[in-house]
Amino acid sequence: MVEEELDRFLPEEGPGPEILRKAMRYTLFAGGKRLRPILAIMGYEVAGGENVRQEILPQAAALELIHTFTLIHDDLPAMDDDDMRRGKPSNHKVFGEGIAVLAGDTLLVEAFRLFIQGLLPHDVKLRMLNELIDAIGVDGVMGGQALDLLYEGKGPSPEIVDYIHSRKTGGFIRASLTIGGMAAQNERLIPVYREIGDLIGLAFQITDDVLDVVGDEKVLGKPVKHDSERGKSTYPALYGVEESRKKARELVDRAIEIAHYQIGPELAWPIIELAKFIVERSY
Amino acid sequence: MVEEELDRFLPEEGPGPEILRKAMRYTLFAGGKRLRPILAIMGYEVAGGENVRQEILPQAAALELIHTFTLIHDDLPAMDDDDMRRGKPSNHKVFGEGIAVLAGDTLLVEAFRLFIQGLLPHDVKLRMLNELIDAIGVDGVMGGQALDLLYEGKGPSPEIVDYIHSRKTGGFIRASLTIGGMAAQNERLIPVYREIGDLIGLAFQITDDVLDVVGDEKVLGKPVKHDSERGKSTYPALYGVEESRKKARELVDRAIEIAHYQIGPELAWPIIELAKFIVERSY
Repeated sequence: MVEEELDRFLPEEGPGPEILRKAMRYTLFAGGKRLRPILAIMGYEVAGGENVRQEILPQAAALELIHTFTLIHDDLPAMDDDDMRRGKPSNHKVFGEGIAVLAGDTLLVEAFRLFIQGLLPHDVKLRMLNELIDAIGVDGVMGGQALDLLYEGKGPSPEIVDYIHSRKTGGFIRASLTIGGMAAQNERLIPVYREIGDLIGLAFQITDDVLDVVGDEKVLGKPVKHDSERGKSTYPALYGVEESRKKARELVDRAIEIAHYQIGPELAWPIIELAKFIVERSY
Repeated sequence: MVEEELDRFLPEEGPGPEILRKAMRYTLFAGGKRLRPILAIMGYEVAGGENVRQEILPQAAALELIHTFTLIHDDLPAMDDDDMRRGKPSNHKVFGEGIAVLAGDTLLVEAFRLFIQGLLPHDVKLRMLNELIDAIGVDGVMGGQALDLLYEGKGPSPEIVDYIHSRKTGGFIRASLTIGGMAAQNERLIPVYREIGDLIGLAFQITDDVLDVVGDEKVLGKPVKHDSERGKSTYPALYGVEESRKKARELVDRAIEIAHYQIGPELAWPIIELAKFIVERSY
């Protein structure tokens, strides 16, 4: 459903310059896990939502547009300088840096258009929009990326690693789940989702950093040991691979426990399965 | 009021990395004309709005955040490669390219936060938000910048110049005025504003291109003949300076005529004065 929604919203042919559309679609359809949209839809359904297509699908797909924007800008030479992404040359390698900057910018702008589509009440849409902006703004993904850039090569410190992890990935993953709960207008579950989202968000980032050290290039679609060899502020750099893996498993166990007791296994099983996938995945 | 609102919304000290805040404020407070916020407030007041602070100031200031985002990204080496902006070294010259990319991104995200503040009804806010996104998205400012980049050095053609002008500047200026009318919930004036906004938006861009050829560097705060010598698609490159000036004056005369007959001189005088400024300005 997410793939279809993204293709419907951003078809090959439509208004605006063809090259820009092509560049946006190139990274958008390069085979992502769609973790954020899935979390939003899951959060919505577990919280009792019954009209996925009109009440959460536009918002869920918009999260992927935003995630793709961050990937394209993150790969730029002035940022992480990554040549490969999702097993293919990164955006600026194919379209040039100028168009890559604009493709990222445009994905971000258009994400807001999609985010306010659908049949939810206006006040619910605006509440979800504020949650999203908190997660990606100056003290969210953007803030995390700025510190990530600033501290590259300076050796990791626990405080900086914590800030970067909680902002660059954790907060956005938490918001994805929480936005689902907001769409379902389930006030009881929203704080529960925030707690679970925090835990699996951090576990996700730790696992990403571990895979950067020990993962399989072919499965990951990008070179391994790329971040770790550049003195990036990561968990394994700070605590080692084994300790990091243990930490990620503990976080997920705690998330599953909360899902179990606060939501109940008969409803929460999709969240529990996803939490397990987050630490067990190889890509 | 706009300066105060921008400073309130994005103070020197606040959440997120200090460097990011500093980079955002650097270009934001480098002395812009605040044309887009002024147009929005003017459109609101002329249309009968009476609570500027709560019903249009946040949206007006948000337009300036977005405009500043486009300037920072536009100046990047991969884009227009401009070293000076508003009389000071451009953002990436001071903070480096990575932070400049992120400062632009963050201004865009935070603009949406500000844009939905204030006391307007939710449906009015969402309507204004859609108008804004139309103006800056894939077939708006972003689309205009992509074609501007793509056709640099290829010699101007009338169709390309028209597309770039109407999208890169014209549509955003039209939207600024129109958003003011929407905030005042004046249905009669919204289509009138669109028409006036189109005319003064195009006149503004033509005047910008003329100033690039014949302007005073000290007054402009950036080198002259910068665009024209790189084979940018501009009006003077296509029709010459005198013909371009004549065209800009004609457009503004037409806008003033519409303001006169559709709104009336006793109400429309601020719009009329601003339209005159747009072609008579030296910066």
